[in-house]
Amino acid sequence: MLELSTIQEMKDWSRSVRSGNSRLGLVPTMGFLHDGHLSLVRHSLKKCDRTVVSIFVNPIQFGPCEDLDSYPIDLEQDIKLLADIGVDAVFVPQRDELVPQDLDTFVEVKNLTEHLCGKSRPELFRGVTTIVLKLFHIVQPDLAIFGEKDRQQLEVIRKMVLDLNLDVEVTGLPIARESDGIAKSSRNTYLNAEERISARSLVRALESGRSLILNGETSADIVKNEMRSVIKSQAGTQIDYISVCDPKRFGEINQIENSVMLALAVHIGKARLIDNCLVEKSPCKEPC
Amino acid sequence: MLELSTIQEMKDWSRSVRSGNSRLGLVPTMGFLHDGHLSLVRHSLKKCDRTVVSIFVNPIQFGPCEDLDSYPIDLEQDIKLLADIGVDAVFVPQRDELVPQDLDTFVEVKNLTEHLCGKSRPELFRGVTTIVLKLFHIVQPDLAIFGEKDRQQLEVIRKMVLDLNLDVEVTGLPIARESDGIAKSSRNTYLNAEERISARSLVRALESGRSLILNGETSADIVKNEMRSVIKSQAGTQIDYISVCDPKRFGEINQIENSVMLALAVHIGKARLIDNCLVEKSPCKEPC
Repeated sequence: MLELSTIQEMKDWSRSVRSGNSRLGLVPTMGFLHDGHLSLVRHSLKKCDRTVVSIFVNPIQFGPCEDLDSYPIDLEQDIKLLADIGVDAVFVPQRDELVPQDLDTFVEVKNLTEHLCGKSRPELFRGVTTIVLKLFHIVQPDLAIFGEKDRQQLEVIRKMVLDLNLDVEVTGLPIARESDGIAKSSRNTYLNAEERISARSLVRALESGRSLILNGETSADIVKNEMRSVIKSQAGTQIDYISVCDPKRFGEINQIENSVMLALAVHIGKARLIDNCLVEKSPCKEPC
Repeated sequence: MLELSTIQEMKDWSRSVRSGNSRLGLVPTMGFLHDGHLSLVRHSLKKCDRTVVSIFVNPIQFGPCEDLDSYPIDLEQDIKLLADIGVDAVFVPQRDELVPQDLDTFVEVKNLTEHLCGKSRPELFRGVTTIVLKLFHIVQPDLAIFGEKDRQQLEVIRKMVLDLNLDVEVTGLPIARESDGIAKSSRNTYLNAEERISARSLVRALESGRSLILNGETSADIVKNEMRSVIKSQAGTQIDYISVCDPKRFGEINQIENSVMLALAVHIGKARLIDNCLVEKSPCKEPC
């Protein structure tokens, strides 16, 4: 497996891959890889001739009071995992090269980013889209793969690609979960044993919400109250947001008539965890 | 000369050009072409195997009270001029396709855009960089050429290209002038005979400022006062800004020690005209 660390090395390798008409897949990550990341990588290995995984803890997507300095890193282990499953190249850019002190240019996707995580973390999506666009220019992938745990991020990137006329196919893959249902996340490492138990309430809240809707509940307030009570029943949980929203644009929905996204963000100890699910309402379930 | 109007047509033609390893030049314009534009086009014809000129009156770079609705258009004449000098393709995107109603994504270059035209016209550069980036993605040129009359725009685009790791060479070419010294501009068409005479004061103000500096004046205030008096001596002129600034970052300079840019924007009748010049100070002109 090639280990690339400069932008020029990455551009050169990409050019050589593309000149051979090989299809190139990119999995952008912040490292500390878990099975969720690896499922994205395996998908790229299946769909593309060559796969590159980028590892970069993106400083400009963290707010001033967030966990940039404590974000977990294990580059040696990451490289071993990627080499073992047959990745062609790993791109580990240097922070000062990818985000120089005098970076002046930023990309923003309006509207979609005003809700959910964009509301709680105003720096987040501007930082994500700017760095992902830079990676797209550097790597020039045919396919880029993201996890649905960050469904808002996925749709924001899809919108950026559409709006900016980029020729990158963007694929989202289902959330990978631990055996107890918790969504896999590098930030789960922040949880102690007790917090870990409380963290199970996120997926349980989603399941309760989904169940209510599939049983005919159309009031988003009732669904959110139920979800809130599931979270609050656990020690040490502090809700950031609970939302019933449009699955593409993320605006809050009051009356549930079509498919919706249930999403939540909860602080537990040092971790801020997110989870979400789509609830598909078949339009012909009710008398048509 | 090919006339391309859809994004897909443009992408397909560009792909075919690039697959033959031909060097592709792009001259982005808002049409109503004059000799200034044509000098950019000739440069591309000389430096590249294939040249495409885009014509698009970019609605998102105009403010709500600006001249979008009256901006001059003569597509037939433009196409004739370009065909006559041997351009390979003209790209005239449809407004609704390039700037759909639901466009959410915008690119901003901070800092450089806080001065001069960016201060007077807050929508301007966000609109320019967003559309130019879209054009770069669609056309994928090797070389893009801009005029130095819009020197701030040129440097903003250069910074965007650098910051976003794009592989586009950006070239700026000198201002084309009428025989009376007025910088060529599509907006000169707004001037009546009397205003046209007043408009000569812009280049005269620049010449006066340059002359003062080359004769040893180091106070930017004195230089700007002299420039201001040249403009004010003419009927119907209303100054937007007069600036002595850094030629790359555009921050105001008080004490002139190195090369500076003199820039000004003046309203005359319905037109807002801009002009600028660089004043290169050789560091060894003074006793070293």
